Amino acid sequence: MRVGIIGAGQLGRMLGLAAHPLGIEPRFLDPSEDPPARIAGEVIRAAYDDPDALARLAEGAEVVTFEFENVPAAAARLLSSIVPVRPGDRSLQVAQDRLAEKRCFDRLGIPVAPYAPVATSEELASALDEIGTPSVLKTRRLGYDGKGQLLLHERSRAAAAWKELGERPCVLEGFVEFQRELSMIAVRGNDGATSFYPLTQNEHRDGILRVSVAPAAADPEMERLARDYAARLLEALDYVGVLALELFDRGGELLANEMAPRVHNSGHWTIEGAATSQFENHLRAITGLPLGSTQTTGASAMFNLIGSVPDPAAVLALPDAHLHLYGKSARPGRKLGHVTLRGADHPTLGGATSRLREMLADQYGGTASGRAQRRH
Amino acid sequence: MRVGIIGAGQLGRMLGLAAHPLGIEPRFLDPSEDPPARIAGEVIRAAYDDPDALARLAEGAEVVTFEFENVPAAAARLLSSIVPVRPGDRSLQVAQDRLAEKRCFDRLGIPVAPYAPVATSEELASALDEIGTPSVLKTRRLGYDGKGQLLLHERSRAAAAWKELGERPCVLEGFVEFQRELSMIAVRGNDGATSFYPLTQNEHRDGILRVSVAPAAADPEMERLARDYAARLLEALDYVGVLALELFDRGGELLANEMAPRVHNSGHWTIEGAATSQFENHLRAITGLPLGSTQTTGASAMFNLIGSVPDPAAVLALPDAHLHLYGKSARPGRKLGHVTLRGADHPTLGGATSRLREMLADQYGGTASGRAQRRH
Repeated sequence: MRVGIIGAGQLGRMLGLAAHPLGIEPRFLDPSEDPPARIAGEVIRAAYDDPDALARLAEGAEVVTFEFENVPAAAARLLSSIVPVRPGDRSLQVAQDRLAEKRCFDRLGIPVAPYAPVATSEELASALDEIGTPSVLKTRRLGYDGKGQLLLHERSRAAAAWKELGERPCVLEGFVEFQRELSMIAVRGNDGATSFYPLTQNEHRDGILRVSVAPAAADPEMERLARDYAARLLEALDYVGVLALELFDRGGELLANEMAPRVHNSGHWTIEGAATSQFENHLRAITGLPLGSTQTTGASAMFNLIGSVPDPAAVLALPDAHLHLYGKSARPGRKLGHVTLRGADHPTLGGATSRLREMLADQYGGTASGRAQRRH
Repeated sequence: MRVGIIGAGQLGRMLGLAAHPLGIEPRFLDPSEDPPARIAGEVIRAAYDDPDALARLAEGAEVVTFEFENVPAAAARLLSSIVPVRPGDRSLQVAQDRLAEKRCFDRLGIPVAPYAPVATSEELASALDEIGTPSVLKTRRLGYDGKGQLLLHERSRAAAAWKELGERPCVLEGFVEFQRELSMIAVRGNDGATSFYPLTQNEHRDGILRVSVAPAAADPEMERLARDYAARLLEALDYVGVLALELFDRGGELLANEMAPRVHNSGHWTIEGAATSQFENHLRAITGLPLGSTQTTGASAMFNLIGSVPDPAAVLALPDAHLHLYGKSARPGRKLGHVTLRGADHPTLGGATSRLREMLADQYGGTASGRAQRRH
C-alpha cells in the first residue's frame, strides 16, 4: 500500500519510518534538495503546487496526507479530485487562516482569547479600542515558530507593527497571561473512532518549542475538557488523522491557541512514551486501519535539538534516553533532532532531565523560558 | 556515520529502521533481488564473497556488521583487514560450526547435551555407542530452521540419516527431553559494558520459531544463571553487539542449545516491549555508543507470520498490537512479518493472545508445538 506525503521534513521522516512496519510505502513531495525524509522513501522533488508532481504523488497512492498545514489550496483541491486527502480540505482551510481558526473555535464553544480581524490600519485602531493592550498582532496566514506576529505593549507601536507585518490581513488577539502551555494530541480514524493522548506540557523559547513533558500534571476535569474540545474539532471537521490542539492554561481555565492538522512536535514523545506513536496512529487513521492504544508507558520528556547537536554518546549515556536525528545540516534556529527521556514517573526523570538541560544550556539559554505568545 | 550490514533480510531491515534516528546510515550487501532492507538504505547487490562488493560495503563505513552468521570466512577476513567487523571473526567461527560451538560452551562451563563429532559412518557408530538414542544428527555447518538435522529414534536409522545429510561432517547430540525453550538476548558494548534482556520463552513448530513470550516465567536463580552463561560467551569471544543464546529448560536445569552472533527472532518483542530494542542496542554497541536500557515495558508476546499474513485490520484491532511486515512476497514457510502484543502483564495479554492464535491457526496448526530439536 502506498501513501503520498506532502513535505519530506522531519515529520515526514518519522511518518516514513513508522510506515514500513505497517507495510505502507511512503512517497514524498518536497522541493528541497536533501530533505530529512529521503531515507524513508522516494522524494518527488518539485514545488508543492506543481500539477505534474502532484499527479505523480497521487499515482498508485491509497491516500495522500501532509506534514505541514500550508499546503497550497489549489494543490489540495487538485489532489482531492483524484485521491482521498486526509485530513481533508476543511481542516487545511481552518488551519491556514487564524481568523477562520478562531471563528471555528468560537462556533464550537471552545474558549479563545478575545480577537478581532484587522484588514486595514483603521481596523487595527478599532480592534485596539475593543481589545486593548497588551495584545498580539498576528498575520492571518503563514505564521510559524513565532514568526508573523508582534506583541503590542502600547497603542503607539501599532502603526509600526502593521507596517512590519507587511500590511497583510491580520488578527489582533488579547494577550493571555497564561500559567503554562499545553497540547492535546488527538486522532480520529476513518471510521469515526477517536483516541486521545494525555495532555502534554510545552515550554517554548524565542517562539520555538524546546521541551514537552507528558503526561502533564492535570486534574481529570481539565483532561476531560481538553479531550472534549479536540473531539468537537475532529467531529466538526470530519477529520481523519492526528490533530494537535494547543491550549493555554490560565488559572485552570483552558483557552485554545491554535490547532495543527497533522502530527506535531509536542507529540514526538509518543514514539517511546506511548503504546502507539502519533506517527503510527496518523497512518493507521488515514489508511482505514484501527487506531492503536494511546496509553503511556511511564513519563516522558522530549527536548528539541535546535541549531546544534550535543555529543550523542553523552546523550545516550542518560538513563532511558532516545535520540532522534533528522539528517539535517546544522544552522542556527534549525530543528536538528530531539531527545526523549523516559522513566517510570516524573520524579524518576528528574536527574536525567537536569543533566540534559545542562548539555543543552547553550541553545536553551540560562533564563526561564519566555512567556510571549508564539506559533508552534 | 555509515554502517555496513552483510545481509538485507528482515533483520537488516529492522536494524536499518533503528539506525536512522541515531544518525546512522546503513548500507547493505545482499545478492537477492528485492530484499526486505531495501527500504532502509542502499543495497549493494552482489555475492557475499565478492571482493569488490565487500570493498564498497566497507568504503566510508565506521564498522561492518552482519544479520546472519553464515558470512563466508574469507569475506570476514577481507573486511577485517580494512574496517572493524563487529561482532568479530571469532564469534563467526564458533557460530558457524556446531562442533566448535559445543566445545566453546564446554570450555566455558556452560552445560550442553552430550555430543560427539561424526566425520565418517564409523564415527557415527561409535558416537551412537557413546550417546545412544534418541539422539539428533546435525551437520556441523549451515543448518537453520530445523534443516540439516535428523532425529534418530533407533540405531537402525543411522546409515540412512548419514546419507540423507550428505555424509558431511556432523555432530551427534543426545536428545534433550526439555520442558521448554528459552533464549537470552544479551549485548556487550565496545567498552565491555554488558546488558541483558529478561529470559524469553520460545515456541517452535516444524523447526521454525512461532511465538516468543517475554519476560519468561523464571526464578531469579535461573535468570542469573542464563545471564552468567551469556556473559561468559561475551567475555570469551571479546564480543561487541547483540548475542542470542538459546537454552533448554530441563526440569529447572539450563542446557545451551546454540548461540547466534546477531540480533535474533526471539528478541523482536524488544521493539515495543523494552526501553531499547535489540536492534538499537546492537547499533549502539558496534558504533561505540553507550548501551540503552533493557528494561521491559510490561509483558510481550511475539508471533511470527509464516507463509501468509492475516488481515492487518483484524490484527491491529487487538489491544496494543503492533504489526511488522517485512516487504516479502508470500511463500510457504517464509517469515513474512511478526506481530507483537503488549500489555501490563501476561494475564492482560491472554485474551489478545488467544484471538491472535485463532487468526494464525492455519499457519500454526491445531496441535501443540512439536518438541523436536531444531535450529533458530
